[in-house]
Amino acid sequence: MARTTGSHSDITGPRIRAAALRLFARHGFAAVSMRQIAAEVGVQAGALYNYIPDKQSLLFSLMQSHMEELLAARAAQDVPGDALARLEAFVRFHIRFHLERRDAVFIAYMELRNLSSENFAAVEALRRTYETTLEQVLQDGVTEGVFAIPDIRIAARAVIAMLNGINTWYRVGGPMPLDAVEAVYWDMVRKAVGG
Amino acid sequence: MARTTGSHSDITGPRIRAAALRLFARHGFAAVSMRQIAAEVGVQAGALYNYIPDKQSLLFSLMQSHMEELLAARAAQDVPGDALARLEAFVRFHIRFHLERRDAVFIAYMELRNLSSENFAAVEALRRTYETTLEQVLQDGVTEGVFAIPDIRIAARAVIAMLNGINTWYRVGGPMPLDAVEAVYWDMVRKAVGG
Repeated sequence: MARTTGSHSDITGPRIRAAALRLFARHGFAAVSMRQIAAEVGVQAGALYNYIPDKQSLLFSLMQSHMEELLAARAAQDVPGDALARLEAFVRFHIRFHLERRDAVFIAYMELRNLSSENFAAVEALRRTYETTLEQVLQDGVTEGVFAIPDIRIAARAVIAMLNGINTWYRVGGPMPLDAVEAVYWDMVRKAVGG
Repeated sequence: MARTTGSHSDITGPRIRAAALRLFARHGFAAVSMRQIAAEVGVQAGALYNYIPDKQSLLFSLMQSHMEELLAARAAQDVPGDALARLEAFVRFHIRFHLERRDAVFIAYMELRNLSSENFAAVEALRRTYETTLEQVLQDGVTEGVFAIPDIRIAARAVIAMLNGINTWYRVGGPMPLDAVEAVYWDMVRKAVGG
């Protein structure tokens, strides 16, 4: 994001993105102006345009980075092994990654409607890539004879939707430790795919 | 919604609600003005206030009716029988009901952030009531010895989140008939609860 090496842009760029993420998640993309984002950061509205050409680019950049971070973290986490172990690792990884990024996850689903068609296609392609990494594990499990899945692609979407639901109710510091939540969801996912 | 018996309010009220639902789903609650809703309906902005006191009341009314219709439909659908049959009926019912009301479902989840705390509590109570009807089926299945569920409340949320995910990808008239989608999800839900 840095415009000029050694300038304030190294910190201002990320601060703009953090403010935009917060405001979009709170009020919705369409209700937030560049002026409000500037005020949240504490810079003049005009200064924002040194970092980002427009609000659409800002939204796309936030959604794209979210998906790219997800894919990078997933690539680092998916190690060789049998499908059952890899599926368990996926479940635990997906839960933790998404719980730590509630605003980004909320926006990633809710603001698809506000992406230009070109940006929408790019974000959808990244999402498909992520789904495909899960589909591969499911397919491997079927090949190994440990999973029974009538439709791999739907199963991957069903697992992801089930796990994303945790973001709507789980409270950090609440009565249930995250390990216990992971164990309960892993039990359901494993059984759902016949493992 | 009728203000005066025999007036146009019998049709204007529902038209306002339909327009608000459409606009909120498209742009987000915070980005839509009462003036835009009036324009969509084709009435003067001032006329809107004969039907609804403010935008917050309109949002609450839409979310409350959605949950009340859901509860009424669910009550009519849940017939006595064994837990496995009742769970299958729930799954098929939930999928169809929600696919037919995409805008209302989208708003029901996305605009919770924009409800006043009092209205939020009321909507949450209705949602809990709905979840409880599923929890009862799951608990009955455990009692009957046909389900194995480590946490009933989480299982209910997980099933609902999994099924709600269908709204994000299923297209009516697409390659997969709804019956087939229902069958695939029912297979996963049944296995997830150990049935």
